[in-house]
Amino acid sequence: MTDVSRRDVLGWLGGAALGGVLAGVGGVVATARDGFAAKGKPGLKEAPKAPAWVAHPLDAAQCAPVAHAGYWEDGLGCCYGVFHAMIGAMAKKYGAPYDQFPFHMMEVGKSGISEWGTICGALLGAASAYALFWGRKERDPMVTELFRWYEKTALPIYDPGPAGQGAVGPLPTHVSGSVLCHQSVSTWCFATGIDASSPKRGERCARVTADVTVKAIEIMNAKLNGSFAPVLKSKAEAACGECHGKGKVSPILKGRMDCTPCHGGSAHVQDKFRNHP
Amino acid sequence: MTDVSRRDVLGWLGGAALGGVLAGVGGVVATARDGFAAKGKPGLKEAPKAPAWVAHPLDAAQCAPVAHAGYWEDGLGCCYGVFHAMIGAMAKKYGAPYDQFPFHMMEVGKSGISEWGTICGALLGAASAYALFWGRKERDPMVTELFRWYEKTALPIYDPGPAGQGAVGPLPTHVSGSVLCHQSVSTWCFATGIDASSPKRGERCARVTADVTVKAIEIMNAKLNGSFAPVLKSKAEAACGECHGKGKVSPILKGRMDCTPCHGGSAHVQDKFRNHP
Repeated sequence: MTDVSRRDVLGWLGGAALGGVLAGVGGVVATARDGFAAKGKPGLKEAPKAPAWVAHPLDAAQCAPVAHAGYWEDGLGCCYGVFHAMIGAMAKKYGAPYDQFPFHMMEVGKSGISEWGTICGALLGAASAYALFWGRKERDPMVTELFRWYEKTALPIYDPGPAGQGAVGPLPTHVSGSVLCHQSVSTWCFATGIDASSPKRGERCARVTADVTVKAIEIMNAKLNGSFAPVLKSKAEAACGECHGKGKVSPILKGRMDCTPCHGGSAHVQDKFRNHP
Repeated sequence: MTDVSRRDVLGWLGGAALGGVLAGVGGVVATARDGFAAKGKPGLKEAPKAPAWVAHPLDAAQCAPVAHAGYWEDGLGCCYGVFHAMIGAMAKKYGAPYDQFPFHMMEVGKSGISEWGTICGALLGAASAYALFWGRKERDPMVTELFRWYEKTALPIYDPGPAGQGAVGPLPTHVSGSVLCHQSVSTWCFATGIDASSPKRGERCARVTADVTVKAIEIMNAKLNGSFAPVLKSKAEAACGECHGKGKVSPILKGRMDCTPCHGGSAHVQDKFRNHP
């Protein structure tokens, strides 16, 4: 700590750290001290009350087409599509603080973050929406239920009818086994023979954007009405954790992704640089 | 599109989509129509002008200790640590719109998103900060330079001196070869023999949070002063792209992650469920 003192750092942080996540009437209230916190104005004795981040139940059937269309809107993609369908719906109905969020930022998750194929951006959009309302203790099981569902489900499910933009009509489905954009898209393309850079593949991801929105809202609504009970498990995570989990003989494991795609010894993860195809 | 008409969907989107990303004096101005856009008030003929999202140069030496401390603050973690060190620094100096961001949301990236080990949260924090100011065409090369650097660099570099919270003094370094939290953390633990759930590993990630902040600011400052010129490449990406890229014989590739860790045939990606260890 050379240029700034610890006191400076903590003072700075103090104004910015999470103020707390509190259970509120009719939902969950997250108060961020420098989020949408009130700013004192000259001449006012008291600062105006900050609008609270309260989660509201959503109608998945109404949000799904908005998510699908959001994917295509200005090419903003999957992460924006899900996040905007959820938080934008609250903005439309309730105004602030939802309508003050800089939605354009959520393009960040497009194609697994700037084409890198890491986390599926649709999942990042949903997890980010949850994070506005719930701290990690409450949120992590919600995210895990959503992510496990994504790993195990044949996608896409949603069909926008004539509103399809990259293709109209049914699309083939595939279970990716992974929450990573790279595996989700590339295994779908491998299984279906559809080009990763084709409009059809884009339409597939637009529909996955709607699918993730529907599932994320189902989980959120259940959380809000007290009925959320996570059920999905990973056999591989449990098996590998027996030796690589906390307190075990080789406690090096970080992560909850299904281990199988990369550690199952499939032909896809052999040495592709020397013995390929 | 059953419950809402296309017109409804587009009208809704119209109020929320990115208004545009415009080059501005002294930086880059992103105007979000429902981001921090002005809301008309009764009695006012014109809505007040929306505060613009303008990127400002930052002092990496000042931000690094804030990032490190931010990682530990209330356990908010790496993604919050980087994002808050960057955008919080702008908030401290310039106020709105930076200080109106709901910073608590950035806990979303902790441990690769809710312990899942996907994208390193520190990298997500930096990419999200960039996304406030630059659309994908400008941002993607910045993200790629940062991510390639992360893949190839022995981390951690930063040493907070006596401000270390999980450990004090030097820590062993390792080149992860990957932007994924799972590989970044687990290969570091495998190489060093340090427990993934130990305070030392936490301190390692707090220092990586500072390292990513420093590199992200270096790239951002270069972008702002016109000197940004990306240089880092992946040999594996180029090699695999020769057959799996756009317009090639098997165009299934989505992603820019180095292919080697999962497709290089190492002992780590053989069948761990039958022939292990």
